[in-house]
Amino acid sequence: MTGRLIGVGVGPGDPELITLKAVRALGMADVIAHFAKAGNSSHARAIASAHFPPGAEEVPLLYPVTTEIPHRHEAYRSAIAAFYDASAAALAERLMAGQTVAVLSEGDPLFYGSYMHLHVRLAHRFPTEVIAGVTGMSGCWSTVGAPIAQGEDVLMVLPGTLNEDALALRLAQADAAVIMKVGRNLPKIRRALERAGRLERAIYVERGTMAGCTHSPLAARDDARAPYFAIVLVPGWEGAA
Amino acid sequence: MTGRLIGVGVGPGDPELITLKAVRALGMADVIAHFAKAGNSSHARAIASAHFPPGAEEVPLLYPVTTEIPHRHEAYRSAIAAFYDASAAALAERLMAGQTVAVLSEGDPLFYGSYMHLHVRLAHRFPTEVIAGVTGMSGCWSTVGAPIAQGEDVLMVLPGTLNEDALALRLAQADAAVIMKVGRNLPKIRRALERAGRLERAIYVERGTMAGCTHSPLAARDDARAPYFAIVLVPGWEGAA
Repeated sequence: MTGRLIGVGVGPGDPELITLKAVRALGMADVIAHFAKAGNSSHARAIASAHFPPGAEEVPLLYPVTTEIPHRHEAYRSAIAAFYDASAAALAERLMAGQTVAVLSEGDPLFYGSYMHLHVRLAHRFPTEVIAGVTGMSGCWSTVGAPIAQGEDVLMVLPGTLNEDALALRLAQADAAVIMKVGRNLPKIRRALERAGRLERAIYVERGTMAGCTHSPLAARDDARAPYFAIVLVPGWEGAA
Repeated sequence: MTGRLIGVGVGPGDPELITLKAVRALGMADVIAHFAKAGNSSHARAIASAHFPPGAEEVPLLYPVTTEIPHRHEAYRSAIAAFYDASAAALAERLMAGQTVAVLSEGDPLFYGSYMHLHVRLAHRFPTEVIAGVTGMSGCWSTVGAPIAQGEDVLMVLPGTLNEDALALRLAQADAAVIMKVGRNLPKIRRALERAGRLERAIYVERGTMAGCTHSPLAARDDARAPYFAIVLVPGWEGAA
């Protein structure tokens, strides 16, 4: 009898924003896998470790490359694909031995998460469950208290890695927007918001729901490089009532 | 000393998809308010009622009008605005008396939720906290096990109430899409997906994460009216790897 794969959303950062279902799943896991940059500890692990059962085996999955290599580069693509293949193989071994394997995901597992790369490699081979989590963007707009979308608003989720023209075009068409992966893309994002006439409504949020969370109008934030855990919100619902 | 307003996200339907933070907030509430259609009981109440403390006062907020009146109609707008005004006034009275007032929201409070109408009326007057929740859309794509967006995918959240041309245009531009408020809009949504060349990837989900949840390729679903708790997903990440 094979084991069971569980993709566990642990929420946006505040350890209390984990669900009862995630806590229960972790309590029954034989193996808990989590992603981290080599040399760093996993953020998802920090959020959820209070719920690990005694004796569970931890499997850290350490990214082999950093954002210093451009993502479109062939060397990046092949290194990262080999990493996901090896990670999936390591978990498959445990699943074939009948173990319950939980893979931690910050936010929601199927929403821009690394878990997805294991899911597509394993879900057709083993019984699999995905436990939805509170996304980073929900954590951010809740922290700020900014109603993001209502009624007939169209909300767009935009990676900050898109080029400036694509960002400006999308932002001009959206009623509400969330720009993820801000980091070094902040100056470009600011220019795109300005071109789309949306800079005035934009809110910059850093480390939403986590210790040290800060936020401000984006117009008041300088262009110094933002951390990975930064997001820009453009609330819709302009005639809020 | 005034009380405290708390917008509490209770998640998409499965009672276990509520967060530890929501459970704690409910346990400290003096007053718990929840929205429902007149004659129906509140879905959010059904999700969360196991966590209500003994003795908490419940304040049902019953919508005065139904979807039978078109939303753009002036009579609808004024009736609904008066309802939100009266609801806010009822809660303000309790907040001024120093009570902690929790308002339940299915999914996430600031994402297309009725709580937002109270938030804009009360948050500037009373200490307010918003507790993010798992959205209905996360619940749906997790139930289906469909990786929704990755990498540079643009995700669009589209109300099914948009007209067919607008839907078709947006769907052609999105890498991934979520269409909410399906209900009677299903035939129009299907036509828009077909025009955008996206019908083949579309997944219909009914009552995601709830008892009686079903899902199928949208192409295999007939055009009979869908319930309110239906959503259409168009996963991105087409070259998933």
